Amino acid sequence: MPADRGQAGPPTISEVAREAGVGRATAARTLGGYGYVSPELRERVLAAAEKLGYRANALARSMSTGVSHTLGVIVADIGNPFFAGVMRGISDTSRARGFDTLVLSTYEDLEEEVAATNVLIDKRVDGVILSSAAVHRKEVAHIKAAIDRGIPVVLVDRAVPSLELDTVVINNRDAARGAVEMLIEAGHRRIGFVWGPPATGVPATRRGLLTEASRNLWTDGERLRGYLDALDDARIPFDPELVMVGRKIEERATEEVARMLALPDRPTALFCTETDAVTGSLRALRAAGLSYPRDIALIGFDDSAWAAVMEPPLTMIEQPVHELGAKAAEVLLDILEGAEPRREMHVLTSRLIVRSSVAPPGR
Amino acid sequence: MPADRGQAGPPTISEVAREAGVGRATAARTLGGYGYVSPELRERVLAAAEKLGYRANALARSMSTGVSHTLGVIVADIGNPFFAGVMRGISDTSRARGFDTLVLSTYEDLEEEVAATNVLIDKRVDGVILSSAAVHRKEVAHIKAAIDRGIPVVLVDRAVPSLELDTVVINNRDAARGAVEMLIEAGHRRIGFVWGPPATGVPATRRGLLTEASRNLWTDGERLRGYLDALDDARIPFDPELVMVGRKIEERATEEVARMLALPDRPTALFCTETDAVTGSLRALRAAGLSYPRDIALIGFDDSAWAAVMEPPLTMIEQPVHELGAKAAEVLLDILEGAEPRREMHVLTSRLIVRSSVAPPGR
Repeated sequence: MPADRGQAGPPTISEVAREAGVGRATAARTLGGYGYVSPELRERVLAAAEKLGYRANALARSMSTGVSHTLGVIVADIGNPFFAGVMRGISDTSRARGFDTLVLSTYEDLEEEVAATNVLIDKRVDGVILSSAAVHRKEVAHIKAAIDRGIPVVLVDRAVPSLELDTVVINNRDAARGAVEMLIEAGHRRIGFVWGPPATGVPATRRGLLTEASRNLWTDGERLRGYLDALDDARIPFDPELVMVGRKIEERATEEVARMLALPDRPTALFCTETDAVTGSLRALRAAGLSYPRDIALIGFDDSAWAAVMEPPLTMIEQPVHELGAKAAEVLLDILEGAEPRREMHVLTSRLIVRSSVAPPGR
Repeated sequence: MPADRGQAGPPTISEVAREAGVGRATAARTLGGYGYVSPELRERVLAAAEKLGYRANALARSMSTGVSHTLGVIVADIGNPFFAGVMRGISDTSRARGFDTLVLSTYEDLEEEVAATNVLIDKRVDGVILSSAAVHRKEVAHIKAAIDRGIPVVLVDRAVPSLELDTVVINNRDAARGAVEMLIEAGHRRIGFVWGPPATGVPATRRGLLTEASRNLWTDGERLRGYLDALDDARIPFDPELVMVGRKIEERATEEVARMLALPDRPTALFCTETDAVTGSLRALRAAGLSYPRDIALIGFDDSAWAAVMEPPLTMIEQPVHELGAKAAEVLLDILEGAEPRREMHVLTSRLIVRSSVAPPGR
């Protein structure tokens, strides 16, 4: 029970400082919960605050407004230019509507994602945009926890099938299918897929491969399905030897493409599902003394300034990265402003930028 | 003055909820300051909290520990792979020492930087790592405000000359000088500088150029000085026509290199100080029908996977991006754990990765 100070109005920070016998700045830091204060001084300030019945302004302010006008963004990899573009879209839209954005990166680690979600709850963000590494039903407790605490969550780039949430994605399956169809139309039938699911050892069957994929990232599975769709339509038999497996890093893509190039019936085209898969593949081509598009055709995700200045320039899939972020922010801000969550897939369309990395096989 | 509830111990959220006649979750959201609560219900909860003398746990926790174990990072452009690498370094080091990191991007806008600093103060981070767009004495009030509130600030990538703060940078001037020296040693005397200060119209004199540069980013000025150092040492006269000016965007680099290539005495080499300056320059070369290194030599900042797979691969300056971030986090965490700020420049060394984009002129 606070002591009666025998005067009107709530106690001020200066009064607490006087009572504690410390400077005003020390009292402000302690009561504001920011900055360094020695344990001894902190204790004195807290005791004085307790005695006078001091109540921090920051909390009072946050309690009176209810919203902090801050969105939290959790991305899988802040170092991927794709996510950088998405974040720019989120930031532009949020700023225009009066919200700041805090970003955390999980580096594709589910534990980090759980920790990041807790940080954002703790920092009292109003809503979260999440590009999740979660796939299974048992991996989504942290997302549910945020929602249960009244923090709406919108997913971006990656669907989490076991959660019914607003989700903003691109047409991954169609985009992959379209690219592989272009290779098939140019005459290719041996088309390498870089990169696939992180299995150990090549799954012998198509079903095995899809099972592996479904244990992993949603986008990866969708792109693999698009590749298979195109092969099926053209009645090209699936060859597991032409699918990269293993860790999704540039070095591994180089190794796997080198392996494919050493096959008796080597691929005449490559479809690369990531920027690092493209550069990893190009390293393998150079090591093997092969040039594109003469010796091998190539199409990749995601378009960049570099892809355009390569010699010859690369045919690439361009994702609407800014739009992905802007749409996710829009959906989330609408919910914060009272709209009912629609709990649906918002599918944006990618674009195949045709340049000069595809030619017929065996020229 | 809180009402006496006639019982021991502080009131709980459930008691506040009961008093307000709302669900526990609604009371928790209101009192925790997160999530949406309708204005009417919020008012009832706050009145009940006031009546019972409820004090939020989050604040109590933050007040008792003093630190939130969160670092704030403000970068100029989250979309620049350079900053992505720096952030990874910050994040790895912080996590290893038990701190989470919140990132905000200012997109090179000083007003955004001020807003971002206020957000981080508001979110009670323990310290801030800042890559500032500030140059002038009058632009640093927000940084001083954070420090005055007990939040230590460490600068990364860019020094702010008017502030005495721990600052982690690379040897920009020496790195630029070394690259230009390599071009001079290969026989070049007409060396274009892409990009320079954002002046309108080419400053006629060397002094004018340096004045423009000092009004702008510290890194840009340092790299320009390194370029001039190398010219001076080789007694090559400075030609303002060979320095790009204007907005620092890829399109502008393309325009400016095109302008230089149209000069009667065109450059035989280019030194590019940014990734976008490299790709912008390459676009101009292609448009002019010129190939490197045969028609023109080229060295650029910053090395990337793409630069290595170009044909021929590019000679590039590699910045120790991860180390930059790691060092900045280390210095900041040391301060948070009681070390005296050393207020010094921590200078890390870049590396010139020699590949195949430099040949003698006029081959």
